[in-house]
Amino acid sequence: MYDIIFLGGGPGGYEGALAAAKKGLKIAVVEADKLGGTCLQRGCIPTKALLHSVKLVKQIKAAAKSGIKVENFSVDAAAVKKQKERVVNKLTKGIELLFKQNNVDLIYGRGKITAADTVTVNEEREIKGKNIVIASGSKPAELPFLKVDGKYIINSDTALELEDIPESMLIIGAGAIGLEMGLIYNYLGCKVTVVEILPHILPGSDIELADMLEKELKKQKVKIFTAAKVSNPTINNEEGSISFDFQQGEKEWRESFSRTLLSVGRIPDSRGLFDESLPIETDKRGFVSVNANLQTGVPTIFACGDVVGPPLLAHKASHQAIAVVDFISAGKPVAHHPIPAAVFTFPEFASVGLTEEEAGAKGIAIKIGRFPYSAGSRSNAIDEKVGLVKIIADSENTLLGAHILGAEAGELLPLLSFAIARGMKAGEFKEVVMIHPTLSENIWEAVGEIGGFSIHI
Amino acid sequence: MYDIIFLGGGPGGYEGALAAAKKGLKIAVVEADKLGGTCLQRGCIPTKALLHSVKLVKQIKAAAKSGIKVENFSVDAAAVKKQKERVVNKLTKGIELLFKQNNVDLIYGRGKITAADTVTVNEEREIKGKNIVIASGSKPAELPFLKVDGKYIINSDTALELEDIPESMLIIGAGAIGLEMGLIYNYLGCKVTVVEILPHILPGSDIELADMLEKELKKQKVKIFTAAKVSNPTINNEEGSISFDFQQGEKEWRESFSRTLLSVGRIPDSRGLFDESLPIETDKRGFVSVNANLQTGVPTIFACGDVVGPPLLAHKASHQAIAVVDFISAGKPVAHHPIPAAVFTFPEFASVGLTEEEAGAKGIAIKIGRFPYSAGSRSNAIDEKVGLVKIIADSENTLLGAHILGAEAGELLPLLSFAIARGMKAGEFKEVVMIHPTLSENIWEAVGEIGGFSIHI
Repeated sequence: MYDIIFLGGGPGGYEGALAAAKKGLKIAVVEADKLGGTCLQRGCIPTKALLHSVKLVKQIKAAAKSGIKVENFSVDAAAVKKQKERVVNKLTKGIELLFKQNNVDLIYGRGKITAADTVTVNEEREIKGKNIVIASGSKPAELPFLKVDGKYIINSDTALELEDIPESMLIIGAGAIGLEMGLIYNYLGCKVTVVEILPHILPGSDIELADMLEKELKKQKVKIFTAAKVSNPTINNEEGSISFDFQQGEKEWRESFSRTLLSVGRIPDSRGLFDESLPIETDKRGFVSVNANLQTGVPTIFACGDVVGPPLLAHKASHQAIAVVDFISAGKPVAHHPIPAAVFTFPEFASVGLTEEEAGAKGIAIKIGRFPYSAGSRSNAIDEKVGLVKIIADSENTLLGAHILGAEAGELLPLLSFAIARGMKAGEFKEVVMIHPTLSENIWEAVGEIGGFSIHI
Repeated sequence: MYDIIFLGGGPGGYEGALAAAKKGLKIAVVEADKLGGTCLQRGCIPTKALLHSVKLVKQIKAAAKSGIKVENFSVDAAAVKKQKERVVNKLTKGIELLFKQNNVDLIYGRGKITAADTVTVNEEREIKGKNIVIASGSKPAELPFLKVDGKYIINSDTALELEDIPESMLIIGAGAIGLEMGLIYNYLGCKVTVVEILPHILPGSDIELADMLEKELKKQKVKIFTAAKVSNPTINNEEGSISFDFQQGEKEWRESFSRTLLSVGRIPDSRGLFDESLPIETDKRGFVSVNANLQTGVPTIFACGDVVGPPLLAHKASHQAIAVVDFISAGKPVAHHPIPAAVFTFPEFASVGLTEEEAGAKGIAIKIGRFPYSAGSRSNAIDEKVGLVKIIADSENTLLGAHILGAEAGELLPLLSFAIARGMKAGEFKEVVMIHPTLSENIWEAVGEIGGFSIHI
C-alpha cells in the first residue's frame, strides 16, 4: 500500500512525489509516456533550449552595433534540435536518478483510478494507495474546422521536432506557445505569420505591454494580425501549401502557407482517468473539480496542475502538488498564492497579480508606476532598451500587480511576486538596495513612482 | 542659500540631489569633471557596455554547440569603444536633463568647504548651503614601486579607453575591476595574466565560489596566479615591454608584458575638500569619518559613498545619499542595510551578507544550502551550467548570507538581499512561487536545502 500514488510524472506528479518521498512516504508515480511530462518533453524546456539557440541568431545580427562583425553564419536546424535533445535527455535522466535516490516507484503505463484506493495500470496491474493525486496535465486543443494532420497542420508537439523548416508558417493563436514558436521558426528562417482572434496578443495580459511586445515582434519580422479570423482552409497538395481566408475588420484576403501551427490553447488530459462510478466531477471542458485543498469528491483523491484548470503552468502544478503533500502528511491547508507567469519572447514578458484591465473591470481605484528600460543604466549598457516595468497598486499603495516586458523579466519578477503575495506597500521597497548597474533597478524605480521615491524619471 | 550642496556629481551626489529636489529642496551639485562620476564615466557603466560586447564574442565562440555556425567574425575595438561612448553619453545627458527638470543647479568646478555653510568653487565663487554633503568618491590606488605612466603602466581609467589592444597584459590585483578588465581584454584578443597577492581571487568573497570562478576564467584563457607577488618592474623601451619578477610559493620566474594594468583598489578622493580648520576628520587612508547618520564633525556637513569607506560601490553611495536627504528633510535616522555586490564576470558573482569564512571567524554556527546551476532546468536550457547558489543561515534557519556564482547572479540577488535585511527564515521561502523555467528556481532550491523543502537535489 503506497501512501500516495501520483497519476502522471510531469511537474506536478514528479515534484510532488519527490517532496513526499523526502518526508519518508511510500510513493508511486504512474506515467504513460516519459518523466517530466509536457513541460520537460514537449513544452517549457525544449522551447527554452530552442529559444536560446535562436536568440544567438538575433544577437549575432545585432552584434555589429556592439563592435563585433560577423561575416558569415548559418543555422543548422539539425544541430539546434540535437542541443535541445541533449538538454531534455539530461534533465529527464536527472529526474530518474532522483526517483531512484528517493525510492520513488516509477511505473510506466496508463493509469486509471478504479476504486478510491486503487489505480489500475494498463488495465492489468492493480496498485493500492492511501491517497491518489491526479496530475495528468493537458494536451494541445484543436479547432473544429482544423484537425492536426502532422503535415500541413501541426501542433506544438510536432513543431518542436523541427523535422524541416518550412518556407512559411501560419500560427493560429498569439498566446505564449504561439509567440515562442513564432520566434523560433522566424529565426530559423521561416516566414512567420501569427493570427489572433482577440484584439491583442497574449490575451488576458496587460494590454499596454502586450501591444509593445507586438510592435517589437513585428520589428523582428514576425507578421501579426490581431482581431483577425481565418477560415476555409484548403490544402493544395501540388503546391504543398494550405491556404486560408483572412478577415480583419473590413479587410479580407486569402493567403497560402507551407504549414499551419495550431496554438489555440490546451485542454485537460482527464479522459478515462477514473471509473465513472467514483464521485469525481469534471466540468464541461474536462477540468477536474477540486475544493480549496485540491480534493476531488473522494477526499483521498486529489488533483493538481493543468488538469484542475488555468493557469496551465508547470510551476503552478508543482507548487500545488507540494501543497497537497503537506496537506496529506501534516494537515496543512493549501495556500493559494498569486501565480506568476512568463513568456520567453525577445524580450520576455513576465507578470503576476492584477492587471490594469482587471482592476478596471473590478472597479478598483489603482495607482500605476512605470519605468522604461530605455531609462535604465544596465538596459542601456547591454543594449536592451525595449521594455517597461509596470506596477499596479491600490490607493493605499499596496502592491497588487507587476508586469514586466524586457530582458530577464522572468528573473526580475520573484521579488515583486513575493511582495504582492505578502501585501507589501510600495514604500517598503525604498529600503531594498539594488545592485548597480542591474535591471533590478528598473523595478525599484517603477515601484518608486508609486511610493514617491523614484529618482531616474 | 541652498538647502543642500552636494560636493561631487557621482551616484551619491546626483541621486541625492534628485531625491532632495523632488522634495522641493533647493539644491546645488558641484562637479569638477563630468556628471555621473567614476561609475558612469570610468567605472560600472563603461565596463558593462564593454562586457556586453565581449560577451558576444564568448557566445559566438560557443554558438556551434547550439546549432549556430559562425564562419568568420572579427572584433572592431574602435566600434566597441564607440558603443561604450554612446551608452555613457546617453546616460550622462539623461542626468543633465533630470537636473534641469528638477531645478538642480549644476556648478562645474572644484569645490572646497571653506566654512560650515560655504563651498568655494575654483577658489573664487562662494556658494552657501544649510547642509553640505561630501560625495567626492574615490580614485584608483597606485603601488609605491609602480606609478602609472599611461604607456606601460595604466589604471582602469586608461584601460577603458581601449586606445589600442596590447599583445599581452599583466593585471595586478584580482578584485572586481581586475577581473572585469581582464575578461574585456582577453576577448579583445590580448593575452591576459592576472596576479593576486592574496590566496584567492576576489579577496573577501566566499572562497568556494571564488575558486570556482578562477577555474572558469582559466578555461576562458585568462592566466591567473594567486598567492603570488610581482616585483622589480623593468621597462624595455626597445621591445616595448615591461617585465617583472614573479614569485608563487617556491616558484620564481620573470615574464614580460606589453602593458600592466594596476587594479589594486581605490583610495578616497578627499584631499583639499575642506578647510583644515573645520572639525572634519579623516582616517589615515583619507576616508572621511562619519557617525551613524553620516554626519561629519560638523553636524550639517555629511559624507557618503566611497569617500566614507568600504564597500566602494555606486549603489551604496546613492542609497546613503538618499538616506542623508531623508535625515535632513525629515529627521529619519539612516538605516544600515547589508549592501549587495556583484562582479560582472562570465559568469557573474553576486553576494550579500555573511560569508562562510566570516561566520567561521565570528564563531557563528551556520547551515549551508547549495544548488548547482548544472542541476537547474533553465541553466541547462540556456547552456549556463557553471554556477552555484550558496546560502548561509544560522542554526535557527535565519538567512544571513547569499552568494551566487552564475548567469544573471546580479539579478537573482535582490529577493535574497531583501530576505536577509528582514531577517527572514529559510522556511518562508517555500511559499515563494518561482516561474518555471527560470534561474530563480536555483535560489529556491538552495534555500530549500536549509528549509528542508528542496526537490531537485
